Amino acid sequence: MTYCVGLRVAEGLVLLADTRTNAGMDNVSRFTKMVTFEKTGERVIALLCSGNLSITQGVIARIKHGIQKGDRDPAFRSIMNVESMFEVAEIVGAEMRRMQEIHRKAIIEQGADADATLLVAGQRKGGKHRLFLVYTAGNFIQATDDTPYFQLGEHKYGKPILDRVITPASTLEDSMKAVCVSMDSTIRSNLSVGMPLDLAVIEKNALTFRVQRRIERTDPHFSAISDSWAKALSHGFEALPNLLDPPQA
Amino acid sequence: MTYCVGLRVAEGLVLLADTRTNAGMDNVSRFTKMVTFEKTGERVIALLCSGNLSITQGVIARIKHGIQKGDRDPAFRSIMNVESMFEVAEIVGAEMRRMQEIHRKAIIEQGADADATLLVAGQRKGGKHRLFLVYTAGNFIQATDDTPYFQLGEHKYGKPILDRVITPASTLEDSMKAVCVSMDSTIRSNLSVGMPLDLAVIEKNALTFRVQRRIERTDPHFSAISDSWAKALSHGFEALPNLLDPPQA
Repeated sequence: MTYCVGLRVAEGLVLLADTRTNAGMDNVSRFTKMVTFEKTGERVIALLCSGNLSITQGVIARIKHGIQKGDRDPAFRSIMNVESMFEVAEIVGAEMRRMQEIHRKAIIEQGADADATLLVAGQRKGGKHRLFLVYTAGNFIQATDDTPYFQLGEHKYGKPILDRVITPASTLEDSMKAVCVSMDSTIRSNLSVGMPLDLAVIEKNALTFRVQRRIERTDPHFSAISDSWAKALSHGFEALPNLLDPPQA
Repeated sequence: MTYCVGLRVAEGLVLLADTRTNAGMDNVSRFTKMVTFEKTGERVIALLCSGNLSITQGVIARIKHGIQKGDRDPAFRSIMNVESMFEVAEIVGAEMRRMQEIHRKAIIEQGADADATLLVAGQRKGGKHRLFLVYTAGNFIQATDDTPYFQLGEHKYGKPILDRVITPASTLEDSMKAVCVSMDSTIRSNLSVGMPLDLAVIEKNALTFRVQRRIERTDPHFSAISDSWAKALSHGFEALPNLLDPPQA
């Protein structure tokens, strides 16, 4: 399985992905699920993948191939030369549809699952920073202030903390903490999600990555957040009023 | 959907169930999912249900009918006269298999889901307090010290807190708090799980219910726990170290 989370707050975009991939319980591998593209000062994009790995790798390969074509021939639309992030999401959706057309029938006949979803996050010069969720069918939705985050894969364990703490006004620092806590809760409760993690932070209008970092199992910063959160939960739990006592006035 | 949780700790059993049932998003009803049976000093049993409501209601109706038969004819095995909680779980499993035999095919042909699962918790005089999870096929597993809790339905949102705080040595008070926090997190993140709640607590060897209570939306005790937890999470989040600062020594 997979857990990826993307936040779109006023200050920018924060993306975090795990790296565990499994075909059954006994075939576990490590693959990065985040791919980034940057032309400093012009455009910065991160793609996060979940679902059938052959499909998402195919989508990414075709997108990369498209960028090379677009570099040689500006008339060829690639995610690095189209005029808006909306068009970037359209290209990702079109590649997804194409991969599904080629492979879906045969994959399903084998009894496997061909579904895949991607997060598309980024900003182009002159535009706003945006976050899209692209579905298996190639259609997509965009994060808004009402729903400032998207999750892929094993989303339920890590959703409560996001629901509680994330608003469009959250700072990038707080957003980074929130995705770490959300991932930490997921990893603790689900074997199919695992370290290391890939983190990317795109500050609004910077048109470059403020942070691009692999977080290993031994990362002292992530561990400090994980430990601090565990202690806060433990102390918070100890301080809860009894269910059968009268509530505090 | 549904969220039910049962804890088996050294001091006893703690059960909590929501009451929301839905057939699609626009057909939401309220049904109790907990049924209790008690012969004070002899036997105390709680059943918690999830899945297809017609199946679980049928299972419960047949179990109640069996108790009446067993009262008239002690040779008829009912959950109130068999010699062990294991046999109680066997009876619940057998009734589940029977309901599936009668209805499953037609339900599935209609495009609906016939799956159902139950928690069976209780103690009989001279035995230990036990917690079972009965599957759709009528087979079942038992909670042990390694896994002191079972969940039904929308289990993922409320699992992280149980994983963090519940051990077989947890007190009944702490267990009650833990199931409330687990339910609170689930209700906040999933519309298909809703108040009011049904709570039951069986203290080891008491052979009666220590607590049997409906928790309404306005319940001040539950609200106090919910508020205290929200504050603890909020303060805990504020106190987290930054991901990009050096960790505390």
